[in-house]
Amino acid sequence: MQVQIGRIKKDIDAIGEFTATPGKGITRLTFSQEYEKARSYIVEELRKIDAKVSITVAGNLRGRLEGSDKGKPVVMLGSHIDSVYQGGRFDGVVGVVSALEAARVIVDNNIAHRYPIDVVVFPEEEGSRFGSILVGSRAWAGKLSLDELSRLKDEQGIDYLKAMKQMDITPEDENILIPEQVKAMLELHIEQSLVLESKSLKIGVVEAIAGIRQFSVTLNGVSNHAGATPMSLRFDALQGAAEIISAVEDIANQHARKSTVATVGFLKCEPGQANVIPGRVQFTLDIRDTDSGSLDETVEKITTLIANTCQNRGLTYNLEPRSDTPPVVLSEKMVHLIERIARKRKLGTLRMISGALHDSSILAELTDVGMIFIPSKRGRSHCPEEFTDIGDIELGANVLLETAIELAT
Amino acid sequence: MQVQIGRIKKDIDAIGEFTATPGKGITRLTFSQEYEKARSYIVEELRKIDAKVSITVAGNLRGRLEGSDKGKPVVMLGSHIDSVYQGGRFDGVVGVVSALEAARVIVDNNIAHRYPIDVVVFPEEEGSRFGSILVGSRAWAGKLSLDELSRLKDEQGIDYLKAMKQMDITPEDENILIPEQVKAMLELHIEQSLVLESKSLKIGVVEAIAGIRQFSVTLNGVSNHAGATPMSLRFDALQGAAEIISAVEDIANQHARKSTVATVGFLKCEPGQANVIPGRVQFTLDIRDTDSGSLDETVEKITTLIANTCQNRGLTYNLEPRSDTPPVVLSEKMVHLIERIARKRKLGTLRMISGALHDSSILAELTDVGMIFIPSKRGRSHCPEEFTDIGDIELGANVLLETAIELAT
Repeated sequence: MQVQIGRIKKDIDAIGEFTATPGKGITRLTFSQEYEKARSYIVEELRKIDAKVSITVAGNLRGRLEGSDKGKPVVMLGSHIDSVYQGGRFDGVVGVVSALEAARVIVDNNIAHRYPIDVVVFPEEEGSRFGSILVGSRAWAGKLSLDELSRLKDEQGIDYLKAMKQMDITPEDENILIPEQVKAMLELHIEQSLVLESKSLKIGVVEAIAGIRQFSVTLNGVSNHAGATPMSLRFDALQGAAEIISAVEDIANQHARKSTVATVGFLKCEPGQANVIPGRVQFTLDIRDTDSGSLDETVEKITTLIANTCQNRGLTYNLEPRSDTPPVVLSEKMVHLIERIARKRKLGTLRMISGALHDSSILAELTDVGMIFIPSKRGRSHCPEEFTDIGDIELGANVLLETAIELAT
Repeated sequence: MQVQIGRIKKDIDAIGEFTATPGKGITRLTFSQEYEKARSYIVEELRKIDAKVSITVAGNLRGRLEGSDKGKPVVMLGSHIDSVYQGGRFDGVVGVVSALEAARVIVDNNIAHRYPIDVVVFPEEEGSRFGSILVGSRAWAGKLSLDELSRLKDEQGIDYLKAMKQMDITPEDENILIPEQVKAMLELHIEQSLVLESKSLKIGVVEAIAGIRQFSVTLNGVSNHAGATPMSLRFDALQGAAEIISAVEDIANQHARKSTVATVGFLKCEPGQANVIPGRVQFTLDIRDTDSGSLDETVEKITTLIANTCQNRGLTYNLEPRSDTPPVVLSEKMVHLIERIARKRKLGTLRMISGALHDSSILAELTDVGMIFIPSKRGRSHCPEEFTDIGDIELGANVLLETAIELAT
């Protein structure tokens, strides 16, 4: 059984048109106009193969092919279509359209399957609109209440539930996923790093997903005149931030585990004038590791660093946790299954760790999860230059298709 | 002769209403609606005393009291009314309204003066709208051509001359100031630092104004996924910036001269997402010193630092000079005159250095310049908390008035 790569390419091209920043990469924030166009495209494609389309809690989109046996747990295939600001065309989208194509192949060829197959699109995976990641999968898994969803707000102050309503996205099934209802979850995703490319391999099989702890940090100093205030009398919040950012890099670099990464990706400096000492700086911290003890240790070192730096500089600070997802070890059974199918297709595989989080991390607490990685050119991701060769997408989509058929029959 | 402090207070309160950020300090960008309201207020007050109001090159506002002798050079009193973003109510405004009040007292009391007296408002002193400081005085002094003015653009791409036109500000006198036309320039200004307060003195007499060199720095790295990219494969522009910012502080701190200051006041990080490695960072550099050799030395150290840091980190950079004003030693004659008048009024004085630039720095190349400082509470300036006691303003305005009378008679 083979996917039709022409259809996948058409899907990727169609969805790639829906961006708020044309010419400057993909900006498709959850429940934006662009998001809604992409979502409608998927819904239409699912309806063409008579999938039963429904909306679940938090706006997850589900297209179901019923199985021949009643009451069997579902084989779920999916990913996301929301993006970071000025991101790429492949992150998430490749997983969604490959799942869609797998469903098309199964329907076209009348492949018998006892288990239902769900093509799923999880909203707000990236957290770019509401500042919190994996929202769709977390809500569906019962880890985010409606009350918590209503407290997630975008920059305009619009909350998650209101944003859903504005796009006429109304859940038809508000039930939480329970383990008994899900046989397995499969996600095909671009690697977002250089490892596969550097080893000239096409298929990565994810063994574990790094845990992530994100914080929003605010440093408060004293805003004052840049010319008239002697160096010794300054309480410069940006100098405090610079010291902390440099030390964050040192802490991650010096860590014994190579999977430890720490990033400051956002920084805002107030009042932000060339001739005024910054009185207030806000920045984000993103710390990841596949080992939970090691992750805690890094967070501990960084929080101590922030406290000490601020004390030494006469600054005050606020450290607000934004997300905390523990590392996840994926199902050994699924790793073996994907490896077997790849081998049958004469594809070399590499067991890998995912430094990026995925909705699969959440599903892994409910069911067996398998993740297939395909190469990212030069490791670029979350940027307009993000690229994966269509031939590599075809290889990955075929492994996804065959794994899904094996699980569903 | 005494100023009427009630009138000065009324002026300050009236002008303090004109802000684009009510409740969050004064934001009065040059040729904005708020600026125009403040300027109109001054024009109206000048017309009440029959001053001859005119606009000179680059939108400098001049209100003239003609002298009894024909063809004598002018005694200029003035400052600015444009502000930084979310600045204070006193910076610049105190100098303008004290000059206005001096003119009112001279007219009210029919004080004979052989020399003309000009009350002057210089636009774009702070550089907050067009990114370049002291624009009005520099253009008037012949140091900025019309062509250069047309290349100064605000964030919306509106150039300086177009912004003037939008506010119907049309120069009636496009002549450049020449030394023969100006007998002296006097500016009263808040200190913007803690020195007077710490010595419980009310009057500072400025001997020298620090030179300033400003740069806009851009670092380019590679924007990539914050989770999937190992620390060793990163080209993080914000990490480069943090290293540079910390070293800028060290360089200024270690400098033998206590008057050396260096500030990074603005920083923008792109794409600015918690889970994306910053690929591009822009920041400003502001370096000041009263000694020109020492200023050059600091700039040299910092530019070498930027080059080395970028080379070590595999970043590229661009260093764009934004302004370059040499240190200025003010007229010894004026220092003595101000000290004598203060002494007569039984006021202790302190000879000081101004770390902040003023339009007086530019005028000092044409004529004798005197600058009078009055205390800033806790040294705060360029922020909403900026404050100077009305009693201190009265003392300073009286010294300004009497010095002006002495110079003009």
